[in-house]
Amino acid sequence: METHFTTDENAQYFECGYSCDHGIFLQLEDRAFFITDARYTVEARQNVRAEVEVLESSDLWASVLALARKTSQLYFDKNQISVQVYERLVAGLPETKLVGVADYHRKKRLVKSEEEIALLKRAQQLNVNAFDDFAKYLVGAEGQSERYLQFKSKEFLTRLGELDLSFKPIVAINANAAKPHALPSPSVHLKHGDLFLADMGIKYKRYCADRTRTAFFADTGFNFSKDQHFKDKELQKIYDVVRKAQETTIERLRAGMTGKQIDAIARGVITESGYGEFFSHSTGHGIGLDIHELPFISARSETVIEDGMVFSIEPGIYIPGKYGVRIEDLVVVQNSKATVL
Amino acid sequence: METHFTTDENAQYFECGYSCDHGIFLQLEDRAFFITDARYTVEARQNVRAEVEVLESSDLWASVLALARKTSQLYFDKNQISVQVYERLVAGLPETKLVGVADYHRKKRLVKSEEEIALLKRAQQLNVNAFDDFAKYLVGAEGQSERYLQFKSKEFLTRLGELDLSFKPIVAINANAAKPHALPSPSVHLKHGDLFLADMGIKYKRYCADRTRTAFFADTGFNFSKDQHFKDKELQKIYDVVRKAQETTIERLRAGMTGKQIDAIARGVITESGYGEFFSHSTGHGIGLDIHELPFISARSETVIEDGMVFSIEPGIYIPGKYGVRIEDLVVVQNSKATVL
Repeated sequence: METHFTTDENAQYFECGYSCDHGIFLQLEDRAFFITDARYTVEARQNVRAEVEVLESSDLWASVLALARKTSQLYFDKNQISVQVYERLVAGLPETKLVGVADYHRKKRLVKSEEEIALLKRAQQLNVNAFDDFAKYLVGAEGQSERYLQFKSKEFLTRLGELDLSFKPIVAINANAAKPHALPSPSVHLKHGDLFLADMGIKYKRYCADRTRTAFFADTGFNFSKDQHFKDKELQKIYDVVRKAQETTIERLRAGMTGKQIDAIARGVITESGYGEFFSHSTGHGIGLDIHELPFISARSETVIEDGMVFSIEPGIYIPGKYGVRIEDLVVVQNSKATVL
Repeated sequence: METHFTTDENAQYFECGYSCDHGIFLQLEDRAFFITDARYTVEARQNVRAEVEVLESSDLWASVLALARKTSQLYFDKNQISVQVYERLVAGLPETKLVGVADYHRKKRLVKSEEEIALLKRAQQLNVNAFDDFAKYLVGAEGQSERYLQFKSKEFLTRLGELDLSFKPIVAINANAAKPHALPSPSVHLKHGDLFLADMGIKYKRYCADRTRTAFFADTGFNFSKDQHFKDKELQKIYDVVRKAQETTIERLRAGMTGKQIDAIARGVITESGYGEFFSHSTGHGIGLDIHELPFISARSETVIEDGMVFSIEPGIYIPGKYGVRIEDLVVVQNSKATVL
């Protein structure tokens, strides 16, 4: 058994079935520990997998030092552990080789199990339902501010507090949809004829959903389907290019390709249409317990895609000061092809 | 000028008046930089203080290495910087002494300016207003679940999305109030005669509020004032002890005391009443841009309290399976005494 430790909550949960905000999961050669303080031990014992021992401690790192003293090497995620903790471990474990690997725990979660795929599928189904409920509300929401609509979206996403969000929902109108990091504005109000972009996700049993739709706020009705008809001709052209890029990528991607080859499919469609410079981010990201995890589908990603990987495909075109269009679905690779969750 | 860098958003904001989730603030001897990518440079230039140069970069740490090459030493918060980043800096800055100090940037914010105190005061005023609005709603909320009430609290706290939260509100009924980390339950419903604990906070211009009240949900009305009358005699006794501990601590604390001397005042009152073992956390924490910052008011804190420090005083008594009581206010030390914000 490869020995390792983590303080990251999603990594803890994956490794032992429980997590809390003051805990360490420690895997030694023949024993596994969840170390936490008195507030969490009862709950931890009820929830950790049978083979994991729960240890109550008022100084979690001191417990790690005591338990790992004779361990010859210990892996950890070097993006996640602070210099402070590392120095304490180095000083306290003179016989142990500490091996920092970037994304150590995320790498273990790169290929999802059948059970995880089912959870991600359910999460995205609930998310799609929330989009539909939100759309029905929006039909009568003319005049409401972007900021209020973002607030309101959480009512549908969380089902009045039943579910957690996987990230702060992005709700953007017209030019604000062109800013990938725009905060919802109190002074931009929804009106008929607007472009409305929603990038939203919920969590189901800790697994994240994520979806983006760009839609036309017509006076005759509103929905988040992919069939959208904008009055502005250039905007309709851009929308059609993004949709083609997204659908072509999902259709053509195959196991065995690298992340960057998949990115190149989407980027190719957009570049051929003359909008390459306005597609300013990568094509997609892995998703699971973390909203962003491996594999990344970007121009630099050398990860070879395999069956069981789950990631987003979300090309976009952003014309500063005018509008932005993005369409995002999640896919799982099965039988070497992509299936939309 | 002491040279240092940070990636922490609140530290960035304090140092240069702007922050984003992909930025580094770098203070060299005679120049200060905010380094970020193309998404944020326009906004950064509009917002950073006059003396700070904004640098656009596609590899932020490479820019730090280039700029800091001739700097003899560089401070950083060793709780905040990862092993991954540290190794890159060590390799890329062979002539620079890297000095990791725990809470380096928080230590600079230990004593608040007049302007910061005014912002914290305003934040807490808005927070108190939200408690009052929530209380009015609660009068008619019998039968609602704890989970729904937690969801609903955000409507009043954020003013329908206008303000951010400083943390996830804690809303707990009866025995759930005895668990310091309880998640709101969908199956616990508010009824007359219940104990209702609310620990909630908003942010105003990035500064955090924080307040806790424990109240009796009477059929004759409801409010979050400190004058509460519980039917259960032991509970009333516990409530009175917590109130006395909190008010005595605020009254007696003085500049020049250490954090642990202040903690001992609250702990003394509770221990004398026989409930010492049920006061399972520290008496308070500093607050500012972070919801938890220095000074800590705990049994271990050697920090000497000075004028201008702002922190919570929040003793509690928790009887497992029955109920929990906590009362929290924020104080600022001025003229060597505490004033409630």
